[in-house]
Order: sequence, then structure tokens, then C-alpha cells
Amino acid sequence: MSDESQELGITESKSHKPGEWYAEVVQKAGLADYAPMGGFIVTKPRGYALWESIQDALDGWFKDTGVDNVYFPMFIPESFLEREKDIVEGFDPEVAWVTQGGHEELEERLAVRPTSESIITPFMADWVRSHRDLPLRLNQWCSVVRWEATETKPFFRTKEFMWQEGHTAHASSEDAWKEVWTRLGQYERVYEDVLAIPVLRGKKPEHDKFPGADTTTTVEALMPDGKSVQGGTSHHLGQSFAEAFDITFVDEDEEERTAYTTSWGLSWRALGALVMTHSDDQGLVLPPTIAPTQVVIVPIWQEDTKDDVLEYSENIADELEEAGFRVELDDRDERNPGFKFNEHELNGVPLRLEIGPNEVEDEEVTLVHRPDNEQSVGDRDEIVDTVDAHLEEIYDKLYETAEENLEENIREAHSPEEIMGTIGKHGGYVKTPWCGDEACEEAIKEKVAAEIVMQPLEDEGGETAGEVPEPEEDECGVCGEPADEIAYFAKSY
Amino acid sequence: MSDESQELGITESKSHKPGEWYAEVVQKAGLADYAPMGGFIVTKPRGYALWESIQDALDGWFKDTGVDNVYFPMFIPESFLEREKDIVEGFDPEVAWVTQGGHEELEERLAVRPTSESIITPFMADWVRSHRDLPLRLNQWCSVVRWEATETKPFFRTKEFMWQEGHTAHASSEDAWKEVWTRLGQYERVYEDVLAIPVLRGKKPEHDKFPGADTTTTVEALMPDGKSVQGGTSHHLGQSFAEAFDITFVDEDEEERTAYTTSWGLSWRALGALVMTHSDDQGLVLPPTIAPTQVVIVPIWQEDTKDDVLEYSENIADELEEAGFRVELDDRDERNPGFKFNEHELNGVPLRLEIGPNEVEDEEVTLVHRPDNEQSVGDRDEIVDTVDAHLEEIYDKLYETAEENLEENIREAHSPEEIMGTIGKHGGYVKTPWCGDEACEEAIKEKVAAEIVMQPLEDEGGETAGEVPEPEEDECGVCGEPADEIAYFAKSY
Ligand SMILES: [Zn+2]
Ligand SMILES: [Zn+2]
Repeated sequence: MSDESQELGITESKSHKPGEWYAEVVQKAGLADYAPMGGFIVTKPRGYALWESIQDALDGWFKDTGVDNVYFPMFIPESFLEREKDIVEGFDPEVAWVTQGGHEELEERLAVRPTSESIITPFMADWVRSHRDLPLRLNQWCSVVRWEATETKPFFRTKEFMWQEGHTAHASSEDAWKEVWTRLGQYERVYEDVLAIPVLRGKKPEHDKFPGADTTTTVEALMPDGKSVQGGTSHHLGQSFAEAFDITFVDEDEEERTAYTTSWGLSWRALGALVMTHSDDQGLVLPPTIAPTQVVIVPIWQEDTKDDVLEYSENIADELEEAGFRVELDDRDERNPGFKFNEHELNGVPLRLEIGPNEVEDEEVTLVHRPDNEQSVGDRDEIVDTVDAHLEEIYDKLYETAEENLEENIREAHSPEEIMGTIGKHGGYVKTPWCGDEACEEAIKEKVAAEIVMQPLEDEGGETAGEVPEPEEDECGVCGEPADEIAYFAKSY
Repeated sequence: MSDESQELGITESKSHKPGEWYAEVVQKAGLADYAPMGGFIVTKPRGYALWESIQDALDGWFKDTGVDNVYFPMFIPESFLEREKDIVEGFDPEVAWVTQGGHEELEERLAVRPTSESIITPFMADWVRSHRDLPLRLNQWCSVVRWEATETKPFFRTKEFMWQEGHTAHASSEDAWKEVWTRLGQYERVYEDVLAIPVLRGKKPEHDKFPGADTTTTVEALMPDGKSVQGGTSHHLGQSFAEAFDITFVDEDEEERTAYTTSWGLSWRALGALVMTHSDDQGLVLPPTIAPTQVVIVPIWQEDTKDDVLEYSENIADELEEAGFRVELDDRDERNPGFKFNEHELNGVPLRLEIGPNEVEDEEVTLVHRPDNEQSVGDRDEIVDTVDAHLEEIYDKLYETAEENLEENIREAHSPEEIMGTIGKHGGYVKTPWCGDEACEEAIKEKVAAEIVMQPLEDEGGETAGEVPEPEEDECGVCGEPADEIAYFAKSY
């Protein structure tokens, strides 16, 4: 028993060793294991269930907004990737190559897809003939491989990762912009309404765009350790891919025109952000929206009260399940209540109902919130409404804590010393006027490993779509030269 | 217009050139395209939607019966595949190998998974400690790669294909058997209740089992061209994998014991069987259960009747949609009704509602069944019940046609000449007593390319689980030696 308790408990501290703590929570809460090959993980049932919840939410919204799912081959011939090089340098150095099929050397190497523009775009070109074929909106849920030689961090940094990649074509740049915002808005929504994580919307600086893109937009989430996570990106690709791959269409006036394209993706990094944001030294914390089990009922009995307590508990479990909650009645004989409490805390069950002889007698239940252990008592006969209200309250608590962290950690700075000092002392975002020169970012990056993660956007439609508002002060926070953009520096995952 | 009609129409004949016809239907109904690399296909929106329907059905049943989804890496180190060779020869010759990551040669080759036993089983061994961890039921939806040098046939034969693979561990052989039947039953159900295809349940002959399995069970579907499709397989792996990978557990008496494992898989070959079974020379035919659009409404108007006809049609579309049907109102201005009829026939929409001024005036609708063009008239005010009844009738028609084909094409034979003659003349299944010697199968296979695709099962539980009933006559249909098994010969996909 004491061995098992130790094995169950989290031993690292979130505030002192966030990296070690994160790895421990991911493993002990049963989300993932390390695979035998460096850079790969095994996604376990509880981890995969979380990914399925994100998929379900996004996939529904995608379909409601005109997106069709497809599946393209996992391999891309080298010549297709080469073709993309007219536009960009691409992912070449990071690619895993299949060179043998069976006992034979392949004539042409096949890349395991690092992303699928280079194989999807030629098909889009083939499928688009007329303006009536536009917009064309395709998405696939799959995994991609990028052969980066970095330390493995489950969900944040793995050589193979799961994601969705959307690829669309439109008749006008304005339509493409609308698409970009629609998807960015859906990414924001999945963070804010499902994962209880507020995000900042913005764009990446020019030199950090997706290769070939006109504009890369992003949602950024601030982690409790002061680092920013790029939560999802939505790219306006302009006409560069459409020109390279010849996506043309005949418009209403029988003129041949070139389409505009977008692509957008969200990966299981969202799970990393989820774990990192809410969890604590007792283990995983999950918002009720996504928790595989929302409510666990732990009956507490002695020999003579067992039947009554169990019957009372079962009735409540049935009633809650019927009302649509995801409920577990933990009536295991071989575990004591304390062990059960610890286990469900580790696994992040948002709400615990404790039911002993007193609760049975008083026709009540004791409710305990996972995030802060807040305890209260509710009436048995209002159980459905009570549980509903408590789950909502738990969601709000998580969201508000994350929101406070975000709001308190956006600071302004107007000199390199101030930028670096603020990052060093507080982490978070440092907002500063910027001249637009990459060298100024480099200067900061070299010294404190912070970069420009985001620039706020003027407007999400019309003429100025994608432009950055002017700063109030007009001197670059790094070099002092004239500045007409705002930049957010932060360390990032 | 005439160009487009030609492009739309199917030009090959199902009965004369089933292979060419199949390829044409798959492409023209928008299910899949050929990828640039031989052996790979691109699954288009309409094809992927069908796969999603199969996934939704099976995945729900899996979860209802205790299965958890997981995701294991797409690569398997060569040494892991080697380890499996203690049991079996495995998939070695058919594997695609990753040998380079970025610009570097890998120290150890990585196989792109051909199936995942060799990487999943070691983790199962790690996760199973006590009898309380059993049964352990894992499943993943993914694609696998088998480098076979055969002609590409979308969904039937591709180097990469989508499937689910289930892997379970149990405390006893009997529990493993129950698992095998549960999954085989779910495969049967997906064919019979979703795809409108009756199947035969049975087992593969000993020499054709999954490598390492004790018993391989299968559901087989008979195609209209007389060939059998292996529709899904469920393997009792006995203790061979558990022994090789050390899946042991401490039982209730604190004794260490070795587990029993199963694996089971169904691939997108089910889509191939679906297309092949029901479709015709006009294009795709889909059962309403799986059709992305179940009902298409085609309004037929002249200038002066347009408003009335459209309003009437829209109301019906709304009412049907509200009732939960998947409805499309095809009110395109630029296409005439004949063009629309052809297009929706090609795409396999099960039920067409035709609405012209007469229907409006008489408060009726004209209903046309896709499979046989049967036409009838229904009352406007009973539209929901009417459509429901017609969709059911269409399902039954499809199922009954397939069932007749199956029943008429199981024949007995008692000599090699009779077996080969029957296969040659009729195709279908030929049932014969068999001595159990692989050489007898080879003799038939060499001459008419038919093999033993299935052996019926005595019983699905208890002592005789997995055994084949004794034939009524006791001489092998091929060699005349004593026979104590029944075998079904057929050509197969
Ligand atoms: Zn500057
Ligand atoms: Zn024989």
C-alpha cells in the first residue's frame, strides 16, 4: 500500500522544476509513455481521450463551416517537395526519408509528411476548374513527422505528432482572409471554451511566418512558468502556392484567374498547454468540459453502513449519468477512501462527491472541487442542478486563474535592458515598439532566449486585415530607431 | 453540357469489366483519386465521409464494450520486429523502411508500421501487473503500410491503407475467445446493419492464419462477380505473443500467470466491398444508413411556377432535416433536372424526391429509389413517415439482393473436377469435405486461383470454440482421403 501510494504521488514541484514536474504528471496520470525511440511517445487511453475531445469539438465546428475531411498519403515523393522549393526552403532538413520498400531500394526517396501542402495543393489545382468549385475546404486529421534533434517533451516536442491540417482555396484574397479568421477564431474557441485557457490573437513577425505565407496568424497561451505556447496557426498563403501549383479557375466572366489559399493547423501541443496550465503538485487538473470523468463518487462506509451508503451512491450515480454527466462510482472494496481521493486527484477528476452515513441520513452530498479542494454540502434532491452548477464554477475558477496570470504578465518596456530585465524577473509578455528589423529580435534572443512571439492585429477584415497597429511611442524598444509596429517578446515552448 | 454529361457518366459495364467499372465508379463518384506514387490513393471528401461513418459505428460499439483508444508511433525499430520473429516470420519483406532522418543515416532502420503487435505488446506487458489490470483492451485508428508489388485497386489493394487494430489481453483463454467473438460480431454487424452486406462467419485454415495466432476468424462477403472479400479478421493469439513479450500477471491467489491475447482489424476494404456490392452502371449505390446525403430534392419548374415549386420544396427540405434526415435541396439554377438526376444517381443518393407544379397542386411528392428506379407518389403531409419507410425499403432491397446472391452461390462439390468446374462456371463458394492438407488447397489454387477462404465454426463458446464441424460425407473433395473438416473454396480479392 505505501509503495503504491508513492508510485501514485507526484514528487516534483511545479514551481521549482516545471519540466520534471510536467513529465511526471503526464506519465503518472496515464496520458503518455516514452516510446523506445527518442522523440516518440505512446499516447495512452486517458491522453488519447483528451485528444478525441479536442477533435470532436473542432471537427464539428469545421464541418459546420463548410470543411470536408480527406486523407492524403503519408508519403510525399522527393520531387514534390523539391517543387515547393520554388516558393520556400521548406522542411527538407527535418524530414524522415523512406528509402527502401521491402528488399528494394526505392528509385525516388519518399518523405514521411512533415506537412502536406506539397501533395495536397496539386490535387486542389486538379479539382478546381470553375468559380463554382470555390471555396474548396479540405482538412485531414493525421500525424506528421519532423526530424528535430531536441529533447522529447510529450505533446510539446516529439518527432511524430498528431494534428489537423486544413487547406483551402478561394476566389479572392478577402475570402481567404475570412477563412483565416474563421479558423483562428475556432482555435481561440477551443482554448477558451473547452480547455479553459485564455489566448492572445495576433500574427507572427515577417521573418517568422510559415514558409511561403503572406501572413501567419497565431493564438498564444501563457503558461504559469511565464513561457508562451503557440497554440495554433492559421496562414494566409496569398497566391504563392496557387501560382506554384497552378490553382486557377474560370470566373463568372469566363476569365482565368489564380486562386488564393490558406492553411491552418492545431496539434496535440494543445494537450501540453492544458496539462501545464491547470495541473498542480497533486497531479492532473482538467476542466469539466474535457475531463473523461467529470464526477467521481466515493462512498465511505463501515461494515454496518455499507449497504445503505452504496445504494444511496448508486442512485445518485444513475441519476447523474441519466442527466448526461460522465460519472464514475468508485465502489472498489480493496481500496480505502484516502487512496481513492489521491488517485482521482492525480487523474484530474474535476468534482468529487463524498458519501458516508451522515450524508445518507441528512439526504445530502459533500462536494469537493479538484482545483482548490473547496468543500461544500448540497441537497440530495437537487443533485443534478447542484452538480451542474459546481462543474461550471470549477470551469470558471480554472479560466479565471489562467486569465489573471495572463493579464498580470503583459508588461511594457522601452529599452533592451528593460525588456530583458522584465523577461528575466517575471517571464510573461513584454510589449514594446519595434522597428521591424529582425536584428533587434536577435539581440534579445541571444541574451535571454526570448523572441517576438506575437504582434497584435489592427483589424480582422477589410483593407487593413493583417496589419499591426502603430505603437504609442515611436522608438524601437531595442535599437531606438523609428518604430511603427508593436511586438510581444516572450520565452516560448 | 454534353461534354460534362459524358464526363459524369459511367462508361464501363459492371458485368463485363468489373475491374474497370469499379475503378471508374470510385473516381467519378468522387471517392478517391490515384496518388502520384503507385500503390497509394487520395481519399476524397465523399470517400472519407463513408470511412467516417464506419468509424463512428464501430468506435461507438468498441467503447460500449470496454475498448480504449490509444495511439502508438508509426515507426517500429527493426530490433522490435526481429523480436517478433521468435514467434513468426512476420511482415519483414513487405515493410517500408525509414533509413534517414534529416541529413543523417539512422543507426537503426525504422519500419513504417505494417501492423503494431511488436510495439504495442511490450507496452501491454508493462501495463499489466495484476489480474485487476485485465482485461486490457486497446484500439487505434491509423494507417499502415505494406510494400506489396501488386496493381493498385482503391480500398482493396493499396500500399498504405486505413484501418483499426485492436489488441487485448485476458486472464484466460475463454475470456480471449469471448473477445474474439465480440469483435467478429461487431464486424458482422457493421456489414449487415450499416453496409447492407450479409457475411459468412468462419475461420481461416491453419496454414492461412495470422502469423503467431492460434485461430484467425473472419467475416467473408461475396461480391457480385463471384469473388469473396475478407471483410475483417479477429485473431485468438493464444499465449504466443504474451510469452514472447512477457505479459504476465499476478492472479487472485498471488500466482504469476501468462496472459492470453487477441488482435482484430477492419480496414477500408469494407468501402471496396460496399462499392462493389451495390453499385451499378449508373454509378454509386449507397444504403441510406451510410449515405452522406440520404434524400435529394430536385425541384422542377418553369419560369411561372418557380416560386411555388421552390417554396414547397424548401418547406419539405426543412421538415426532413428537422426530423434528422440528411437532405440536400438541389436548387441550382444552372443545371436542368435531367443533369441533376444523373449526378445524384452517380453519387449514390438513395432516395430522390421530384417536385414539380403537379406535386405542389396535389400536395404530393414523387419518390424515386436509386437502386431500381422504382417510382411512387406520397402525401405531402406524411412526408417524414413516408421518407422513413422508403429509406428502410431501399435498405432492405439492397440487403435482400446481396443475400440472394450469397444464398444462390454456395454450392457443394465432391471432386476436384466438380470444385473447379463450379468455381469456373458460377464463382461463389464451393463447400466440400477437406482432409486438412494444404496440398489439396494448392492443387485447386494452381488451376483455378481459388483457395479456402473460410471454414464454418462448430460453436462460438465452450470447449469446442474454434472447431470446425464434421462434414456429412467423409472423403476429401480434392484427394479422396478421410476428411473431418468442411472448407469453402472461392476466388478472393
Ligand atoms: Zn529596432
Ligand atoms: Zn485432401
